[in-house]
Amino acid sequence: MAIERIEGVRASAETLEAFLRALFRAVGLNDESADAIARALTDASERGVDTHGVRLAPWYVPMVEGGRINRRPNVTCTRKAEAVGHVDGDDGFGHLPSFRAIDEGCALAARAGVAAITVGRSMHHGATGVYTLYAARKGFAAIGMTHADPAVVPFGGLKPFFGTNPFSFAVPAPGEEPVLLDMATSAVPYNRVHLRRVTGTALPADVAVDADGAPTRDPHAAAALLPLGGPDFSYKGAGLSAMIDVLCSALTGMVNGARLPPFGGGDMRRPIRIGHFFLVLRPEAFQALSAFDERVGAFLSDLRGQPAKTGERVLAPGDLEKAEAERRRRLGVPVDRSTWAALGALGERYRVGLPDAQPTAEEGRETG
Amino acid sequence: MAIERIEGVRASAETLEAFLRALFRAVGLNDESADAIARALTDASERGVDTHGVRLAPWYVPMVEGGRINRRPNVTCTRKAEAVGHVDGDDGFGHLPSFRAIDEGCALAARAGVAAITVGRSMHHGATGVYTLYAARKGFAAIGMTHADPAVVPFGGLKPFFGTNPFSFAVPAPGEEPVLLDMATSAVPYNRVHLRRVTGTALPADVAVDADGAPTRDPHAAAALLPLGGPDFSYKGAGLSAMIDVLCSALTGMVNGARLPPFGGGDMRRPIRIGHFFLVLRPEAFQALSAFDERVGAFLSDLRGQPAKTGERVLAPGDLEKAEAERRRRLGVPVDRSTWAALGALGERYRVGLPDAQPTAEEGRETG
Repeated sequence: MAIERIEGVRASAETLEAFLRALFRAVGLNDESADAIARALTDASERGVDTHGVRLAPWYVPMVEGGRINRRPNVTCTRKAEAVGHVDGDDGFGHLPSFRAIDEGCALAARAGVAAITVGRSMHHGATGVYTLYAARKGFAAIGMTHADPAVVPFGGLKPFFGTNPFSFAVPAPGEEPVLLDMATSAVPYNRVHLRRVTGTALPADVAVDADGAPTRDPHAAAALLPLGGPDFSYKGAGLSAMIDVLCSALTGMVNGARLPPFGGGDMRRPIRIGHFFLVLRPEAFQALSAFDERVGAFLSDLRGQPAKTGERVLAPGDLEKAEAERRRRLGVPVDRSTWAALGALGERYRVGLPDAQPTAEEGRETG
Repeated sequence: MAIERIEGVRASAETLEAFLRALFRAVGLNDESADAIARALTDASERGVDTHGVRLAPWYVPMVEGGRINRRPNVTCTRKAEAVGHVDGDDGFGHLPSFRAIDEGCALAARAGVAAITVGRSMHHGATGVYTLYAARKGFAAIGMTHADPAVVPFGGLKPFFGTNPFSFAVPAPGEEPVLLDMATSAVPYNRVHLRRVTGTALPADVAVDADGAPTRDPHAAAALLPLGGPDFSYKGAGLSAMIDVLCSALTGMVNGARLPPFGGGDMRRPIRIGHFFLVLRPEAFQALSAFDERVGAFLSDLRGQPAKTGERVLAPGDLEKAEAERRRRLGVPVDRSTWAALGALGERYRVGLPDAQPTAEEGRETG
């Protein structure tokens, strides 16, 4: 996993969340929408997922200002079968309907043992892992997926077709925060390209192509990403991406990702309307909770006890983020200079004061 | 996707299936167990998945002879919640309880919209995609997973810990066979290493390590596989593998993969007891079937219409296998010489005549 150096400031997660809440309310979102965005972005930032944290706020605001986002969405939930629900996002951002989907999924799975919840007429929801983690903190296992605008070249292709289409899985773990897998099905998330443009460092090999579909390591030349799997095996990443696109469109009633306009471009007055797909499982419907906990605990200690390369340790999914969250709770969340300046400008425009922050030159993290 | 050259004979899928049915009955399995194995292996072979086809029969028979496999399992199904079922494999092979799991999953999902079915006290079930495809042929979308004995080194590790832990997804498609993704979460399946030992060709880079955990392309030196993702990003393949292991153990009551003895070794009198995990979704619980079909159809035509590298075409998951199945229905299924000889020896031992076959030098396919 790559570590990106972030230089800028540090502020506490609490004050950052309060700032984002106030900012998005000032921009005109209703309280529950603004609060959901602030919560999702801060949760990602606190765990070190800087690509999907507070950095997204300056990207979101123009979507509201342009009219793409419904500021006061009426987010509603419909039960479609004993174990199936659908959340309508009413053209607002995706954070609020995604939290709602987990609430509804847990309620249905409490009785049925498993539930599938689709979200439609939604938009970008930050890191998908925020929602599966939310479910796991409530004691449920969860799978989450979302499709997105084209950014990833299909296997054998030349032009972007798939979104980075993340896949996430979270499961409660005894005596610690849940295990969390949260990965783009592209080799890297697009936000890593953006971050590398800012930091001026080369991309890894076999993760991106230029406008002609030829491989490139220059983040400025990168016009599209490759699916997970490298040159020979990216049909697997592409296959996962295809599954996610089908579940997030054919089951939600939205169009497939290749038909979506770019999230941050095109006619900013028009909504985008993407779909998400969540599965929620109640462990106690399958096994006694003590037996389930014992199995998950044994898996984690077996995995973490594996022999490792010199100077390395074998980690479980989410271990790096848990350690980083612990660190950031002590030291504050680092925000890069460019994001901090953008937040400052937004704060001035909307008369919301920036939180207290200390200059720092710390390393931030990103996930893929 | 790699193409392996298979030289040997061709026989029709029907006669191969009949041979396997007769063989496994003669070995002592009860009819429904023998029939399920024959069906699963022939289905894989017919679609070109030679790594998981009839080639497995000579590997299975010693497990029965050694006593590892219960010849007359009493496979039972328990409903654990409105949308959750559990199938007990009673220490037989995994094919029969996996078909049962799909039947039960479809029955539950017909009412609840989604169902999760676990399988326990099971064993190798061939290609996981056989079962998700079976569900999709009945009109349901399905996800299937199984864990397995250690063969894959975790990210940053040196020794095998994960099984090749396949992930499969199938969804009905209008006017054609279902879309099918069926992939090991290792860079390649272990069966590809076996096949390369037979064919004497080098492995691709970054898919296997030797006994010391160092990368190797020599199929004979390969002692373990690497997870999907290549040197930098295999934490993603490892993360998927971790998810699969947790769902197939903590939800089924089985131990995690690292605690399983090698399927083909150790004390052959002892059962292995692995778990599988299936999710079944009824599309009509989410959308009108016409809308669902329209979305899936649009996705497929959009994807297949993408600009491609010179001489290539962009394919949907399972397209290669559909074309190969069409070809093999016409020409017969190729079986490599070594497998054919092993089947012949088994046929002699158990007095089951080999099917008619024509010598051939055709290409067979494998999936990852």
